[in-house]
Amino acid sequence: MGLLGLLRRDSTDADGNLPEDSVDAGTQEIFLSWALFIVILLLIASLWTSYYLQQKRIKGIHESIVSIFAGILVGFIVRVSPGHFIQEQLSFSYSYFFNILLPPIILNSGYELNQANFFRNIFSILMFAFAGTFIATVILGVLVYIWTALGLEGVELSFVDAVAMGATLSATDPVTILSIFNTYQVDPKLYTIIFGESLLNDAVCIVIFETCTKFRDQSMTFTSVFAGIGIFFMTFTISLLIGVLAGILTALVLKHTHVRRYPQIESCLVLLFSYGTYFFSNGCHMSGIVSLLFCGITLKHYAYYNMSRRTQLAVKYSFQLLAQLSENFIFIYLGLTLMTQDDLVFRPLLIIVTAAGICLSRYCAVFPLSRLVNQVTRFRARMSGNPQQLQLDEDEIPPSYQFMLFWAGLRGAVGVALAAGIEGPHANVVRATVLVVVMLTVLVFGGTTAQMLEILGIRTGVAQEQDSDDEFDLELPRSQLQRQRPAASSSQTYVDDENEDDDAENPVASVAASVTEAGSRWFSELDAKVFKPVLLDDPR
Amino acid sequence: MGLLGLLRRDSTDADGNLPEDSVDAGTQEIFLSWALFIVILLLIASLWTSYYLQQKRIKGIHESIVSIFAGILVGFIVRVSPGHFIQEQLSFSYSYFFNILLPPIILNSGYELNQANFFRNIFSILMFAFAGTFIATVILGVLVYIWTALGLEGVELSFVDAVAMGATLSATDPVTILSIFNTYQVDPKLYTIIFGESLLNDAVCIVIFETCTKFRDQSMTFTSVFAGIGIFFMTFTISLLIGVLAGILTALVLKHTHVRRYPQIESCLVLLFSYGTYFFSNGCHMSGIVSLLFCGITLKHYAYYNMSRRTQLAVKYSFQLLAQLSENFIFIYLGLTLMTQDDLVFRPLLIIVTAAGICLSRYCAVFPLSRLVNQVTRFRARMSGNPQQLQLDEDEIPPSYQFMLFWAGLRGAVGVALAAGIEGPHANVVRATVLVVVMLTVLVFGGTTAQMLEILGIRTGVAQEQDSDDEFDLELPRSQLQRQRPAASSSQTYVDDENEDDDAENPVASVAASVTEAGSRWFSELDAKVFKPVLLDDPR
Repeated sequence: MGLLGLLRRDSTDADGNLPEDSVDAGTQEIFLSWALFIVILLLIASLWTSYYLQQKRIKGIHESIVSIFAGILVGFIVRVSPGHFIQEQLSFSYSYFFNILLPPIILNSGYELNQANFFRNIFSILMFAFAGTFIATVILGVLVYIWTALGLEGVELSFVDAVAMGATLSATDPVTILSIFNTYQVDPKLYTIIFGESLLNDAVCIVIFETCTKFRDQSMTFTSVFAGIGIFFMTFTISLLIGVLAGILTALVLKHTHVRRYPQIESCLVLLFSYGTYFFSNGCHMSGIVSLLFCGITLKHYAYYNMSRRTQLAVKYSFQLLAQLSENFIFIYLGLTLMTQDDLVFRPLLIIVTAAGICLSRYCAVFPLSRLVNQVTRFRARMSGNPQQLQLDEDEIPPSYQFMLFWAGLRGAVGVALAAGIEGPHANVVRATVLVVVMLTVLVFGGTTAQMLEILGIRTGVAQEQDSDDEFDLELPRSQLQRQRPAASSSQTYVDDENEDDDAENPVASVAASVTEAGSRWFSELDAKVFKPVLLDDPR
Repeated sequence: MGLLGLLRRDSTDADGNLPEDSVDAGTQEIFLSWALFIVILLLIASLWTSYYLQQKRIKGIHESIVSIFAGILVGFIVRVSPGHFIQEQLSFSYSYFFNILLPPIILNSGYELNQANFFRNIFSILMFAFAGTFIATVILGVLVYIWTALGLEGVELSFVDAVAMGATLSATDPVTILSIFNTYQVDPKLYTIIFGESLLNDAVCIVIFETCTKFRDQSMTFTSVFAGIGIFFMTFTISLLIGVLAGILTALVLKHTHVRRYPQIESCLVLLFSYGTYFFSNGCHMSGIVSLLFCGITLKHYAYYNMSRRTQLAVKYSFQLLAQLSENFIFIYLGLTLMTQDDLVFRPLLIIVTAAGICLSRYCAVFPLSRLVNQVTRFRARMSGNPQQLQLDEDEIPPSYQFMLFWAGLRGAVGVALAAGIEGPHANVVRATVLVVVMLTVLVFGGTTAQMLEILGIRTGVAQEQDSDDEFDLELPRSQLQRQRPAASSSQTYVDDENEDDDAENPVASVAASVTEAGSRWFSELDAKVFKPVLLDDPR
């Protein structure tokens, strides 16, 4: 639901009661209804396009691009039409984005994450998300700093500001790439690495950005770099712990009470616990995104099994519904913002330099790190004394995947939202640059991802997550499941109720997990022997 | 999710970008996170209370009362604590209530409505909702007008304003009564009449209120009363048509496209169509509530059968989740408002007179109309030439039900929200009076409804809507259903997938419907022969 207009509308009467001039208030209420109606129409149009493109198997255009252009079109109409009331309502709100639009997407991502694949590829994901984002941020920051220091367009940025800008443009976007990869059912491994990276690096970029903001008024010294890195890792770890603890708390509450007898209350509580985690973490100056992501993962790993069957479905469907609406709305919103935000200052050369810079910085992050990951994998296989050729091939990142990792690094709304928080005399230039560069990446990389998959010969059509109507048939009612379970655990032909499950429960995944790194094995064992008996209602 | 703080927060920086003073913006962002966190905690507490009360079968206290007091407590803490930032965020927003909190409740009510029972009792419901609300509004308006004309407390209201105030306090609340009646599983007939009345009379009151607002600046004449009634019925009819057409449109779209192959998109579209109807109707100066209510009813009657099974569940669960959160939040919000709104002016005598007035006006509406309904029923039975004693008893409203109708007339947030739109020099007095009277009714009538049901000896524990985990087992996957249907339609032992279904599909209900008024039979026939074949994908 487009709350956008509503949010902005309130800004016109700030003191809580309706303004004196009654006609105006009534008219504004009507205007507001129309604004919300237009937003809903745009959302319907965007979803309809998505349906149409999938139905007709059109690969060249993606719904996000259509959404952006629809947003630009409507923004243009609003801009040229008389009166500034609607235009004022439609400019980008930092607070709105981070408190309403982003949480459902992150929560749903964590919740829907294929945990077996994620933890199998955790080393690559962490390398790209942490080291990769650091490299990309610093390279882009240095480039922008050097360019602005030349003074060609009269824009001057301090080094910290330049790095902050680098951070806004290093957050690769999970939204578009996720939907493209889902549509074409790309090979799960590539999917997981790109998705995992883009999820985590949003959080990384936000933390880098906020660390830069803290160092803004101090002079940069060598120590402060280390202090920054220290703050970064502390923030990340604490946020992660908050999320995991919230997930565990939810699991325990569901286990030790009878709230599952009231599934309506139960599903509300799960949603509220997750959102509470987000705001609590933000309130503690930590990263709500990281907390929410790991809260989602923990919920699915433990709490999910303590829910009533109805709540399992209700939570899943509600998260998906909210995430889908937010995703579609974000692109419309970006398009609208380009037209309706008055204070953007465009500097063409800076935009070109930045656009080239993000390609270079991503190149410098992806290819060396891929080589490093491959070497570590080979080394480990050799050390384990059992250099299975099969496993080597499986755990390495082939060149086509490396190129896809580079290509799939399109930037999204998180960057734009971060840029809204930039300060200083040239903030408007930075914001405009970030907005345009983000949209360029969505248009260029997003528009060509499907073709690139074909050119690189990457496997598509892999039925990883069945998202059709059949899915429902796969999900048997709890009673049937419970009837199946004892039989299954003895005969080992156990069919899980969700095909995207965790290592310990899914025999196929456990086999895969035992083949792969020993590092994650200790967790599987600890999980099966300690955590699951404590946290699950029916640990089997 | 408590967007409340967020909405209000935006009012502090009205021009779309972050304010200059960076520390302040950052601090506000943190404050905002805490405000949202507190709201979520309150919601969790409210839901938890609800669970606890149901679990322990405590009848004396209702969750809505707990929510109000929790709101008052937090509001009090906010009020006495230094700084006005949070307090400003927490005052009642008319726009917020009508655009975010109310729609999910109304939509879910329409969608979950037991259509067989509703149309069976349509005559009583319409009598109470229209004639009853008119009578109550006018009586209360006249009382308030006479009292204020005495000038004891220095409050003067014009007649139109007094009637407008009467309208705000004649909207009985569907929220609390619904949850109480659901908890005790009250006799479906009484449930349907009270629920149907309270749903429709919200809409009636809003339209009366808005009609009064239009006549505010004109002198009242005898013709203008008729003009008002004309406007009222026109608004109601057009709004109803908008809603029904939107529902039919959704059914047709779902029937004639393949969008059910993409259930995620499908469920978003259903939600968006409904919300779009609401804002469209409001934008056209019609009643969004009426449109949304009938959109929900039409969706369930037709579009529901064209959805994929996954969407049927997703829509149902999402609507319920949103409605539940809104309901709980509304009472917290009322409690908060009492403490945080600065401009309320309390006039004790006026509050007492008004509180007595609503009892009197409801008395004058309920008892004479019940007698009228009973007489019409008897007359009709005699006319039909087949005066079945059984049917007479069933269609009449016995005295215990009449008293319950009177008792269950507690007022809710719709009245408070309407009162926020009142204008004039004494608006603050009217607002304070409405707020206090609404809370009194919730405390007194809401707190004693359960006991009153016992005293009056009204049947409870009637399994009308199974809302436990078993419900899920009742809902078979579509494929199984389709397998069942052909067999069932021949053998007449057909088990429907939802036990709250419409006349034509449910044999028990159709029998009941055929016994009752012939007036509704023509619709059942038309529905089965014309509408269903046109609108349903698989009309059987």
